Amino acid sequence: MRYRSGMTTAAIIAVGSEMLGPTRVDTNSLKIAAALERFGVSLARKSVIRDDRGELADEIRFALAHSDFVITSGGLGPTADDLTREALADALGLTMEVDASIIARIEERFRARGWTMPEVNKRQANVFVGQMTLTNERGTAPGFHLIVDGKDIWVFPGVPHELEWMVATYLVPWLEARSDGRARHKRVLKISGMTESGVEEKLAPFYEAHRDEPLTILASGGQIELHLFADGEEAEARALIAAREAEVRALFGERIFGGDDDSLESVIGALLTARGETLSTAESCTGGLLSSRITDIAGSSAYFMGGAVCYTADAKVALAGVDRELIRAHGEVSEEVARAMAEGIRARFGTTYGVAITGIAGPGGGSAEKPVGTVHIAVAGPSATKHRKFLWQGPRTIVKWFSTQSALDVLRLLIVRE
Amino acid sequence: MRYRSGMTTAAIIAVGSEMLGPTRVDTNSLKIAAALERFGVSLARKSVIRDDRGELADEIRFALAHSDFVITSGGLGPTADDLTREALADALGLTMEVDASIIARIEERFRARGWTMPEVNKRQANVFVGQMTLTNERGTAPGFHLIVDGKDIWVFPGVPHELEWMVATYLVPWLEARSDGRARHKRVLKISGMTESGVEEKLAPFYEAHRDEPLTILASGGQIELHLFADGEEAEARALIAAREAEVRALFGERIFGGDDDSLESVIGALLTARGETLSTAESCTGGLLSSRITDIAGSSAYFMGGAVCYTADAKVALAGVDRELIRAHGEVSEEVARAMAEGIRARFGTTYGVAITGIAGPGGGSAEKPVGTVHIAVAGPSATKHRKFLWQGPRTIVKWFSTQSALDVLRLLIVRE
Repeated sequence: MRYRSGMTTAAIIAVGSEMLGPTRVDTNSLKIAAALERFGVSLARKSVIRDDRGELADEIRFALAHSDFVITSGGLGPTADDLTREALADALGLTMEVDASIIARIEERFRARGWTMPEVNKRQANVFVGQMTLTNERGTAPGFHLIVDGKDIWVFPGVPHELEWMVATYLVPWLEARSDGRARHKRVLKISGMTESGVEEKLAPFYEAHRDEPLTILASGGQIELHLFADGEEAEARALIAAREAEVRALFGERIFGGDDDSLESVIGALLTARGETLSTAESCTGGLLSSRITDIAGSSAYFMGGAVCYTADAKVALAGVDRELIRAHGEVSEEVARAMAEGIRARFGTTYGVAITGIAGPGGGSAEKPVGTVHIAVAGPSATKHRKFLWQGPRTIVKWFSTQSALDVLRLLIVRE
Repeated sequence: MRYRSGMTTAAIIAVGSEMLGPTRVDTNSLKIAAALERFGVSLARKSVIRDDRGELADEIRFALAHSDFVITSGGLGPTADDLTREALADALGLTMEVDASIIARIEERFRARGWTMPEVNKRQANVFVGQMTLTNERGTAPGFHLIVDGKDIWVFPGVPHELEWMVATYLVPWLEARSDGRARHKRVLKISGMTESGVEEKLAPFYEAHRDEPLTILASGGQIELHLFADGEEAEARALIAAREAEVRALFGERIFGGDDDSLESVIGALLTARGETLSTAESCTGGLLSSRITDIAGSSAYFMGGAVCYTADAKVALAGVDRELIRAHGEVSEEVARAMAEGIRARFGTTYGVAITGIAGPGGGSAEKPVGTVHIAVAGPSATKHRKFLWQGPRTIVKWFSTQSALDVLRLLIVRE
């Protein structure tokens, strides 16, 4: 991604050893990132730091040096390994004092549940002299808004629903006030059937023409996302994005399958619904992943009639109406059988389109002539049957995913060209 | 979590602006953390840094100063915003040169798919003089193992399945070699068909008895994991874990479906393979997700014969042999129809077991009598047909997932009790 110089940047520090194991991710940062993006602040870095006072103090100083302001989450609990307060005092040269009103508040919270406040909770009444303490209506740990050497540091608890409340209550109004009504607007365009480097190459003239504008290219799961941004007043920003979108669309044409929250399966669902058309599937190596993706879309029962998972030659004959002789002549993984499956399932379900996938997901079953990853896709429609052959690399689940991705794309193109 | 003093520490740096938005988390670090945990290395910090050469170089130096070794992921792609190579050269004072054999390898990868290598991919042939380049068999970006001032830096691509392969191929053997046979040993036990609080409650006596031993309970995707740990010399640690496992098994019995890398679908695959038995499926609301999960297992073609995705009443009649009168009398979402689907698909495919799911995934289609989330599951076997009814809460994809999870569990219990 490229940034305009002068754009405000932020850093997020999540505190807690428990987020450094193999099972947990920090999701608080996503909520903070959403607020930042909305007001045109660029998140430059985020980190997760174990419960170590010295390392945390170093990180706070480092993050402050590498961004315009810093937000921390976690480490404000009452126990001995909650060290964010102490690390902040060390890093920023602040002094702390006990705020008796906080002790009274925490005692009251415990009392309301019929409990007595454990002694350790008194640590949560330590506040910074001359700095702002933020009341936490969702829990015992207050947060802080510190201003040191002209830089802002927001200190929030790590419990997700407490953090969410603090972000909405304190951070968002502050971001809004300093944004001067300017916000960051975003448009995502999604491309299928191209590689990341192929997209990059095609974008070269666009890059050249708009070097100073932020643009993100993101490849994942067999599709490419282009993120267009514009900062400022809404109507103006939207107009700029619309102009850029038109340029990008001119470059990529029908390779752009949708925008923002669209997926291939949702776009196909919208096309079929609008046209009153229907769909059925016959899958071999993808084992039902294609129909599962299609049925992830709410309302898919209006256009998806059903499918057959034909993991054997017998099933291809019995469920998809493939001629056994055809299988004998060409093998189960062949263009001929893929076409027959697509046409057979379309006839069986009486649908507008029939989609078929047959291939070798691996790791076994490959041969010199038909290596693991060989996949034939066919889509039968009212006026033609389209076929494509692929050779995927990667483990079984990757071969399955990319095969469904390609099948959906072949289907999409057949529908829009019908 | 507490750390032994003197424990080796690591830092992970994930590179990429796309992971700093409100939608994406870095999951690569979980795979790296799992490898570190296995060999008793403590992860001190992890960070996500935007695509900025200077900031990335600073972070590499900072992370090296705060840990014994560093692992980076991402930023090795061919495009202009892939800057990890350059940042490493800046941070560590390394020089780069072009490795022509890498260009040849990448060209060959593209050629195998019938494509031409875009010019930009040549950037991926830049390697560090005097340092080790790591061949990436899963993609175009090579990785690196750098040793600078006695500290190790591992540089991996960010594409998850490529990173996973690199970690297993290069990092794990290195960690193993330097661990001196001392490691943190871990055993995961997996439980299905119980809630997290139900598991907690049953574990109370175990907790009491072993307060000073680490134990993690992790609920996700409709199953619960118990992580047992022991540190030290292999035989001794394994013996301690085996003793604890026996205690846990005594508490949970057949609710424990497997351990470590097992999934319900892999455990079922192993059971069916060992018994020479076969399986077929008939799915309505899950739309093929069940058969897709079953066919995620390598070798599943030995026992999975196929399935029908019956999204309409007609399809339930035609593909799963359900009596139309039965549907008329009880509705498509009913115990009777679920049983008929399971028995019908079992007969049609001539398999040992037939599994059926019919329900209302939502958001539409619910009624007072049969609200959204109502799901009937039936499994037909040689001597009985088992049925269970569920009422799930949550969006469509959650209803689908939990339904397949329960169907697999009902199937597993029927198999082991047959």
